[in-house]
Order: sequence, then C-alpha cells, then structure tokens
Amino acid sequence: MLKIGIVGVGIVGQSVCQILEANKDIITARAGVELVPTIGVVSDINKKRDVSIKLTTNVDEVLDDPTIDIVVELMGGVDKAYEVVKKALKNGKSVVTANKALLAYHRYELQELAGENAFEFEASVAGGIPIISALRDGLSANHIISIWGILNGTCNYMLTKMIKEGVAYEDVLKEAQELGYAEADPTFDVGGYDAAHKLLILASIAYGIDVKPEDILIEGIQNISTEDIYFAKEFGFSIKLLTIAQINKNNEVELRVHPALISTVDMIAKVDGVMNGISVLGDKVGETLYIGPGAGGDATASAVIANLIDIARKGKGSPMLGFKTPLEGGLKLAQKGDIETRYYLRLQVEDKSGVLAKVATILGNQNISIKNMVQKPIDEKRANLLLSTHLCNEKDIKEALLTLQTENLVLSEPAMIRIEE
Amino acid sequence: MLKIGIVGVGIVGQSVCQILEANKDIITARAGVELVPTIGVVSDINKKRDVSIKLTTNVDEVLDDPTIDIVVELMGGVDKAYEVVKKALKNGKSVVTANKALLAYHRYELQELAGENAFEFEASVAGGIPIISALRDGLSANHIISIWGILNGTCNYMLTKMIKEGVAYEDVLKEAQELGYAEADPTFDVGGYDAAHKLLILASIAYGIDVKPEDILIEGIQNISTEDIYFAKEFGFSIKLLTIAQINKNNEVELRVHPALISTVDMIAKVDGVMNGISVLGDKVGETLYIGPGAGGDATASAVIANLIDIARKGKGSPMLGFKTPLEGGLKLAQKGDIETRYYLRLQVEDKSGVLAKVATILGNQNISIKNMVQKPIDEKRANLLLSTHLCNEKDIKEALLTLQTENLVLSEPAMIRIEE
Repeated sequence: MLKIGIVGVGIVGQSVCQILEANKDIITARAGVELVPTIGVVSDINKKRDVSIKLTTNVDEVLDDPTIDIVVELMGGVDKAYEVVKKALKNGKSVVTANKALLAYHRYELQELAGENAFEFEASVAGGIPIISALRDGLSANHIISIWGILNGTCNYMLTKMIKEGVAYEDVLKEAQELGYAEADPTFDVGGYDAAHKLLILASIAYGIDVKPEDILIEGIQNISTEDIYFAKEFGFSIKLLTIAQINKNNEVELRVHPALISTVDMIAKVDGVMNGISVLGDKVGETLYIGPGAGGDATASAVIANLIDIARKGKGSPMLGFKTPLEGGLKLAQKGDIETRYYLRLQVEDKSGVLAKVATILGNQNISIKNMVQKPIDEKRANLLLSTHLCNEKDIKEALLTLQTENLVLSEPAMIRIEE
Repeated sequence: MLKIGIVGVGIVGQSVCQILEANKDIITARAGVELVPTIGVVSDINKKRDVSIKLTTNVDEVLDDPTIDIVVELMGGVDKAYEVVKKALKNGKSVVTANKALLAYHRYELQELAGENAFEFEASVAGGIPIISALRDGLSANHIISIWGILNGTCNYMLTKMIKEGVAYEDVLKEAQELGYAEADPTFDVGGYDAAHKLLILASIAYGIDVKPEDILIEGIQNISTEDIYFAKEFGFSIKLLTIAQINKNNEVELRVHPALISTVDMIAKVDGVMNGISVLGDKVGETLYIGPGAGGDATASAVIANLIDIARKGKGSPMLGFKTPLEGGLKLAQKGDIETRYYLRLQVEDKSGVLAKVATILGNQNISIKNMVQKPIDEKRANLLLSTHLCNEKDIKEALLTLQTENLVLSEPAMIRIEE
C-alpha cells in the first residue's frame, strides 16, 4: 500500500480521490500495490467536497507524516506550492504535480532537489494526453526539430467558434465564461500565459533549455477581428493559438506563443473546440501527433494517477526533465526579432488613390513582398487592407509597421498575425 | 557504457546503428551513458550493409557474450526469434524487440521469463508512435472502453488511394508493390494479419487478455470493390482497415480486424496514406488520439532506441504488459457472433420486380432493418443493391445472408462491411 497526501482538493483533487476508488481494481493490478488517498489539505475546511478522506488546513500534517509516501500538489500558484514541494522532497517523499506555473518558474531547482526521488508532472501539460512521457521517453532518440501545440482549450474553443460560426471575440468570450471554459478574468488563458507555461516545460524536455516566461514571445488572441477571420477563410487558413518550440536555421531555440494562421490541410488545424493537440517533429521519427482533452477534472486526474502508478511500479524516478547529463554545448534561446516566417497584416487606411502604392513601397523597402491582398471598405473614406507576405524577418516587419505609423499611412494600430507553415 | 548486440541487421537494424551514431550527443545526454552497438547477427554475411559494427552469422556470439548488456531482436518471424529471446533473457540480458508476430504468440511466456529483466517492444506496434507507453503508462488510471486503430500502413495507403482517387484494388496493390509499400506476397498486410498481431499486443496491455491470432475475427481488404467505395462516399463514410479492441455490453472483450465504414467526421478517418493512427477511449480521460508513421527504418528505430534509453535510465523493467498482478476476475473474449454493429451489404440481384421485397423480408425476418439503400444497375438483367442496416447482431446478418444465398436471391456471394460509429 502506498499512502497519498493531496495538497489542494479542488476539482482535480476530488477527481483523483474518486477515480482511485472507482477504478481501484485495475489501478491496483497495474500498480502492484493499492494506492490509498489518505489526507487532503484545503484552505477552507467548511467547503463541501465529494471525498471521504480526512481533510486538514495544516499542510505539515501531510509533509511531516512519515507514513505518507507520495505528495500530490494540486494547489496551483507558484510561491506557496514551491515551498510545499521543496519540503516534501526534502522529507524524502515522491511528488506528483499538475502545476504548470510552478514548473515554468522552478523546474530546474526542483529537478536538482528531487535527485533520485520520483517527481512527476504529466498532468501539467495537455491534461489527459500523455505528452510528457511521449516526448521524454517515446521520442528520446530524436533531435526535436519542432513542437507545435494547441495547449489552451479555452482559446481553442473560442477561435473555433469564431472561425466556424463567425461569432465575434467579445461574444464568444462571454459564452465561454458562461460555460465555465473561461475565468471571470480570462487574461491568463486568452493572453497566452497558460500556454507559455506549458511550452516551457516541453522545451526543457526537448532541448534542455532553462528559460522563464519573461524571456519568450507571448501574444494572446484578444485582438483577432472578424476581418482576420474573413481573410483566413478566404485563403484556406485556420487561426489557432499556437505554442511553438523549434530549432531555427542558426541552431537556436525559438520559443513563442501567439495566434497563427495555419493551413486547414494540416492535421493540427483539425484540432477543434476545447481539445488540445501537439505535433512533434523529430529528426528521425518524422511527425507524430497527439490529440485529446487538455483540461477537466477526470482527464487531468487520469494523468496524475498515471504518475502515481508509475511511481508504484518503479520506485525511483526518471530524470525529471529527460536529461541525465546536460547536452554538450547546450542550446541558446533565439532572439525575438530573429523570427522568420510569413505574416498577415491588417492595415486601416484612407480609401484614396496612391495609398496602396505607398504601403507597398514601405514594405518593399524592408524587403517584404506581398503574396495575397484584399481591400475591404469600412465606409466611404476608409478601408482595411488585408494582406499576407512572403517569408520575411520579424525585425523588418516591425520596422515597416512603425514607418507606416510614423508616416500616418495607417489610421489605427496595424494588426499582425504570423502565418506558420 | 552499455553494449548492444543486434540480431537481424536489415533496414531497421541498420537505422538503429546509424541513429545511435548520428544522434550520439542527445542520446547519451538523455540516457546518462553511451549506448554502443557492438555486434550484429546476420544470415548472409556477404550482403552489403551500411553499418560499421562487427557482423557474425553465429547468434551465440551475442547471447553468450557476458559483455553484451542489451539484445535487440530484429530478425522477425516467430520460432527462431522466440529461441533467441528466451536465451537472451535466461542469460540475464535486457531485450528490446520490434517483433509483433513473436509477441502475438509468446508475449505471456516472455513476460514470465523476463521477470525483473527489462523487456521492451515499443516498435512492435505503430512504428514511431509511442503507443505502447501511452497505453501502458499514460492511460493506466483508466478502464479502457475501446481502442480503434489504423495499424497497417500498406492497407491505409491502398484504401486512401481507392477512396480519394477511385483507383481499383488490383491497380493500387500493384502500385503499392512498386513503391515498396506492399510485399510481393501481400497477404500478411492486406489480409489483416499484421494488424491483428499488433491488436493482440495492445489488448493485453489494455485488458490483460491472453489470446492468439487464431482466436479472433480477422478479415482483409481484398474484396472491397468500387461499388463499396461509391456507397461510402455517397453516405459520408471513409473505409479503413480497423483494428478494434473494446468492451461490449456483456463486459467481454471484442477483438477484431476488418475493413470498416467510419464517418468522415471522425478524427481517425482523417488518418490517410501510410500513416498509422490509434484512438483510445478511457473511462476517465475520454478520447485521446495518436497519429504518426507506422513503419519505415528510421521511425521504427526511433522506437527501438527509445526503449534502449529507457533501459539505460531505469535498469529494471516495468511490468512488460502493464499488469503487476492479474486483474481480479479477468475478462473474457467475446464470441465472434455476438458483435453488434451496423452493416453495409452489397447484393448482386436480378433486376426485376419483387426481388427487393423478398430481400427486405428475409432481412426483416432476422430483425434487420434497412437505413439507406441504392440500387445500381450492372447490365439489363442484373443490379447491385447497396444498403446499410440499423444496429443488428452479427449472427442474424450471417443467417440472413445465408438465406439469401440458399433461396437464390443473390447472383454472387454477398459482400458485407461493418459500419463502426
């Protein structure tokens, strides 16, 4: 028997307890021992919870109890969770967490602290999809060329609604909030931060790279307009909040989260609604694709319990982030300005002759050539120029957009979405 | 350093050697030790191979060498491979195999023999997709409700060509043979046997069930006609060679391989060409989907090396088939006649009044009701009735088809394809 203490008994914590009970037969057969949730730590002891374990508000009742074998950290947040997990590891316990924010900031310190202790975190990325183990174990023979992920179900639900049903951003956000897919303050999801935390975890496993959320490009979906949706549909694109980790031509690691236009022909473009999807391109295996539920109590608990079973089977842990020794030479984070891709631009301009020529000239001066363009009138005086570029450099496009603004050729802030192929 | 002996240095064996060399930096960092292919066993020593390891025709040079840590079995076939693997395990070596036929027949004996030795086989199912580890480790908290797989790239390539380009079976087979996707004798692939071997491996991990290929329903794609393709397209279906493992309403395990009509809306229907795909439905996690290359030297070697790295990291193995102790009560294999699904039928009949009524009556007598029907004339005297049924029982439909034949209502053997939803 392994005794489990659960710190944070919310939706996921309750699911963990319920599944350990409901599926006890198969879990015990697979683990070889019974996994018994014994005690849960909560902040509000009076709140009703659908579990039969003992509850306490004192986390040390778990951390200092020598009979507790595994601590499951489901409290969320960074600082407090970090203290809890550190103490659990120091007390010799195995730890399982679903906390992506904690790992986004402290994964390397925790790997160091864990040493030979098992420290697992399958639930931290893409909920029920076993992508951590696929990347860390299943694809370990490969140099990873790229990882493209749809890792935020809230954004994917919203973007799917916008593109399939033409619903405007504000309306679909309201709907997502009513359905419980989006928080009252949706910034963490729609701003791309949640996806960025997950991206950093995957990047460490793929590339052994230690960076923080502050170091990488993160853009949200808040400024996507119905014109952008129109352009996407017109030219065979879908719009996804894409998390990208990839090696660029300088052998540096690009890490970025932003909305992207991707061809509807790509398998990953077909990952719709609240689903998550991850496409991994390995230098030897080629592309493998993983799709499934990225959130929800039971799906997340499924991943947490998979880790518990793994610990029961094997005792000691894998190298937490997949590297037993650092990669020789290491890999550097690419500069944000060095991104090279195609771009979609939405420019609000005066609807009069000569404007288009000036815009094209300014773009041309930065070596940016136009691939497709549509002009959509707004009223008698103004129009939106919707255009896509050929491959160019992020620095150049930013420079061109700045020039368009300083020369007063655009009537409002230009919008830009990267096109990924 | 771990020394590796490779038994069978064909396409995959050569890829294993080449990748261990080409990706040595990242493999060593992930494994913590260098993985060194040292000796290869071949049947024809004079055949040119693109590897630099020592070659021998004497397998005992590997099996009896105490300095060899891991034996990689890539010789294929059942009986000889079984002897080699048995001896390797008895001599205390870890074993990695890609041999699905061996596992289809001997996986339980081998699990017994392996004991605490590592015995891994990620490459045996779906090539580069880490589906063994996803199912055994990632989804271990779940009762598996169903596994639907597209596990044979040859068949999927052929069926995709047939449905997308209208190419006839014989022509696409010839083309697949020219491209090297199909063998000169294609029976093992197009007859469904290759997929069945893989299915049995997955079924053991999901259900702990010990059955042999002879025990299960296996039908190939050889009889799929252009009429069937026409019907499929007309009613929104794709045709796939589907491997199914699922729990039926009697809580028994259905295991079957056969062509199936599936809705084009299903994600797995979008797995086209030589790709493999597996949809797993867990009772808690819901559906997760895995897509990637199911064959090819490098993709298969990627899975073999992932196992090598895993062994280097962890030493002792997981429970080979995922169960530390047998599932209480166990699960029984469902009878073939107990399948309940929808069916598509192709019946060649005389084109005269009264025939359709008689056919409908015979079906109705077995409680089979028709959902869709198309009548396509063949010549002035004959027509094909193409129809789909509502949900019914396999025993009933077989009985009805027999009656149609004994009463001479059909002019040739009726064709039947299951519709899976």
